[in-house]
Amino acid sequence: MNSDRIRLPSLLEKVKSADEAAALIKDGMTVGMSGFTRAGEAKAVPLALVERAKKDPLKITLVTGASLGNDIDKKLTEVGALARRLPFQADNTLRKAINDGQVMFIDQHLSETVEQMRANQIARPDIAVVEAVSITEKGHIVPTTSVGNSANFVQFAKQVIVEINTTLSPELEGLHDIYLQEERPNRTPVNLLKPDDRIGTTAIEVDPSKIVAIVFSDLSDSPSNALPADSETQAIADHLIEFLKKEVDAGRLPNSLRPLQVGIGTIANAVTSGLVKSPFTDLVQYSEVLQDSTFELLDAGKLKFASGSSITISAPCAERVFGNVAKYKDKLVLRPQEISNLPEIVRRLGTISINTALEFDIYGNVNSTHVSGSKMMNGIGGSGDFARNAQLAVFVTKSTAKGGAISSVVPMVSHVDHTGHDTDILVTEIGLADLRGLAPRERARAIIDNCVHPDYRFALNDYFERACAKGGQTPHILREALEWHINLEERGNMLSKG
Amino acid sequence: MNSDRIRLPSLLEKVKSADEAAALIKDGMTVGMSGFTRAGEAKAVPLALVERAKKDPLKITLVTGASLGNDIDKKLTEVGALARRLPFQADNTLRKAINDGQVMFIDQHLSETVEQMRANQIARPDIAVVEAVSITEKGHIVPTTSVGNSANFVQFAKQVIVEINTTLSPELEGLHDIYLQEERPNRTPVNLLKPDDRIGTTAIEVDPSKIVAIVFSDLSDSPSNALPADSETQAIADHLIEFLKKEVDAGRLPNSLRPLQVGIGTIANAVTSGLVKSPFTDLVQYSEVLQDSTFELLDAGKLKFASGSSITISAPCAERVFGNVAKYKDKLVLRPQEISNLPEIVRRLGTISINTALEFDIYGNVNSTHVSGSKMMNGIGGSGDFARNAQLAVFVTKSTAKGGAISSVVPMVSHVDHTGHDTDILVTEIGLADLRGLAPRERARAIIDNCVHPDYRFALNDYFERACAKGGQTPHILREALEWHINLEERGNMLSKG
Repeated sequence: MNSDRIRLPSLLEKVKSADEAAALIKDGMTVGMSGFTRAGEAKAVPLALVERAKKDPLKITLVTGASLGNDIDKKLTEVGALARRLPFQADNTLRKAINDGQVMFIDQHLSETVEQMRANQIARPDIAVVEAVSITEKGHIVPTTSVGNSANFVQFAKQVIVEINTTLSPELEGLHDIYLQEERPNRTPVNLLKPDDRIGTTAIEVDPSKIVAIVFSDLSDSPSNALPADSETQAIADHLIEFLKKEVDAGRLPNSLRPLQVGIGTIANAVTSGLVKSPFTDLVQYSEVLQDSTFELLDAGKLKFASGSSITISAPCAERVFGNVAKYKDKLVLRPQEISNLPEIVRRLGTISINTALEFDIYGNVNSTHVSGSKMMNGIGGSGDFARNAQLAVFVTKSTAKGGAISSVVPMVSHVDHTGHDTDILVTEIGLADLRGLAPRERARAIIDNCVHPDYRFALNDYFERACAKGGQTPHILREALEWHINLEERGNMLSKG
Repeated sequence: MNSDRIRLPSLLEKVKSADEAAALIKDGMTVGMSGFTRAGEAKAVPLALVERAKKDPLKITLVTGASLGNDIDKKLTEVGALARRLPFQADNTLRKAINDGQVMFIDQHLSETVEQMRANQIARPDIAVVEAVSITEKGHIVPTTSVGNSANFVQFAKQVIVEINTTLSPELEGLHDIYLQEERPNRTPVNLLKPDDRIGTTAIEVDPSKIVAIVFSDLSDSPSNALPADSETQAIADHLIEFLKKEVDAGRLPNSLRPLQVGIGTIANAVTSGLVKSPFTDLVQYSEVLQDSTFELLDAGKLKFASGSSITISAPCAERVFGNVAKYKDKLVLRPQEISNLPEIVRRLGTISINTALEFDIYGNVNSTHVSGSKMMNGIGGSGDFARNAQLAVFVTKSTAKGGAISSVVPMVSHVDHTGHDTDILVTEIGLADLRGLAPRERARAIIDNCVHPDYRFALNDYFERACAKGGQTPHILREALEWHINLEERGNMLSKG
């Protein structure tokens, strides 16, 4: 059986236990691991590393594609093995360690991590640990449910550990399109003109002598933790679809829209599901994470093709998709995240990009990452790669949180991830604000009138009007601009006053 | 003489007075005018429009490349002719009208204005007014000292007014490289691989029947208003050059560095001049504005080639350059600003981008535009196009302003144009902070230790330490985060307390 999954015979002797492989990871190393949004992470080796760290403490810099499943970030944090972490995470325990200043977290645009490694601006991995369905006759690595930064880590690292996941069909081979950009100054355009173009190879090329260990694992990806749609996410979807219909009617978009990018999470996933009942046809996705909604749209015949960097789906959806790889394989491609998120391609294609905001302000600045300006949630992810370069940059959020104690629409966001220059459309369950071509004062009017919860509208209008009386292109009253957040911190509600 | 400048005979009959041409501009129109950073704007027609508006009031939406010279924005504002203005300006009178809410100003990334027009997200110009040195045998328009958005405006507008500037030599023909991107979804890569590549035509192609008027003008560009270097700008240049030398020594940059982009203004210009005495050789520029420093570097044999969208230089430099066009022409190219600033190309080339900050905070967020969070200075310009995609995004500023009443390094910026994700290197006359690969708390340490003026260091350290005790990935004390700005507003000094 090993020789089915490892088709270069000389590599068979590299098969080791997870413990043996984990022993190759040394204190102080920069470790590049596969994994993007709970999909396709190496599992057995990092879990063995956790066990080892209990006896033999070590600290590493862990670089991945994005977030990991199987509680790997949690467990590595608990044993104190993480000194530094980049470029994204979504784990409660790690989040706490980050916010306590115990783990240095570098929050990055997901397209940029390997760019910075290539230019030696950040350390290249000493060792790469990459999940695969198989190794080819040439010793090349066929990834699993994500590509992420794996291909680049394999290129940069001196040593490579491959973890073969036997729960996934070797039929996944052919799903991936691996393209690596050249170093500067001799870089050429990325010749990807349509989401279904293939420009690379189906496996990660590597000098087989760099492969120092091959580990077999039978651990599965953690299922998506997106919640089902509710009446508010449904209302958000309805507003957005209504808007897109009008764009089609006005001749600004074709009925197939533009390639869709949808951020990870409950709201964005629900919005995409809403397209099943829309009048649009022949849709395509050029996204980073393919979620349940991608397969709903494919099954409904609404979506022709989906390009992403990972497949992060619920357990029932995984059974449907990975049990029928042949049915879906010609409609999907997984790419390195540098390519799925590349500004060059996003701008060329002109995606419609739908990402979730934590909060936005009356001028259209978006906070995607920091609660109360200080506490990290997950990271900016790919939202900046897409929003800056999309044809339509859409941000969605429910208008309130914590039972109404928090308004997601505030006078001034407590942290900025996306500036007003980069936000076109804002949607809450209350309604949609179209900010295109508007000056800041006009943006404020559109946002307050359309997106804010009625409980907060009076106060927001009051702030805006008094700020306008003071003047400015982007009128603010600095003494009050963050008052809602201060109220929340001190009294648990944005509008309760001392 | 007309036939030297208008080489398509059938167009000779379109020659009109500036007043006649200005009469073609109607109330409510969107007018696309040439002009980028005080270079190559149409002059006679807008000045005639000013005179006409005194008798016959009108309001237009004025779209340009960037800022205009010859006080055109000032005069149009004074006669109340501007309803809306985009994407950039740098005029005192207009700035006041913007901040008073009288003119709606849409501050945009300079690469994006025509992209939004192409997608019909903002109105296309009804009429284009473009300065030229000549019109070719085919009726095509040869621009003058800038390209800006002119070629796209000519493509989009129903009517075109050409203003021929007789003060400039027709020898400028051949300096420009006009390339227009296709509409989506059929767009192809922009095949520009090196700053000196030429990918387009030397004149703006147009159906001659769209040309409704040709006006002769003998008005010159306003000279650059950059100030000479002083000891502080010299210190900033020295810190940056020292850093770049270390990058070369460490093998992270070649001795020819990477293509340089330098923002408009005194500090950035002075920094570039500083390269004359540096050890670097065979430099190239891929920038938006070519300033005096470009020609200093060319004359010194340090710079091999410069690509930009405009030439904005002092009167003596203009005499040297435009009196010797043949000497410089093969070392220069002017492109549409969509191409000079295109994320695709900036990322491919990996520029070293040096732009001026109004202020930055301890986490590396940069405010480029808004005084005290509300009042617009000029606009973001191209700084976002470059900083996001550069190999090295550098922001420079003096550590204090207003005789020390203002610290340019603050706890939290009062407005964000560039997030910490996009800033690599910050420089003041005090020193340089290298933020690459650092988490926010580490960034704060580097910035406070290296960039802040000694008069503010204690207070900034105090804020940061107390914020860290509170916790968070990006520790802040919201109640105090904007206090320095509030002090400044209320008492004229960032550190004076009530």
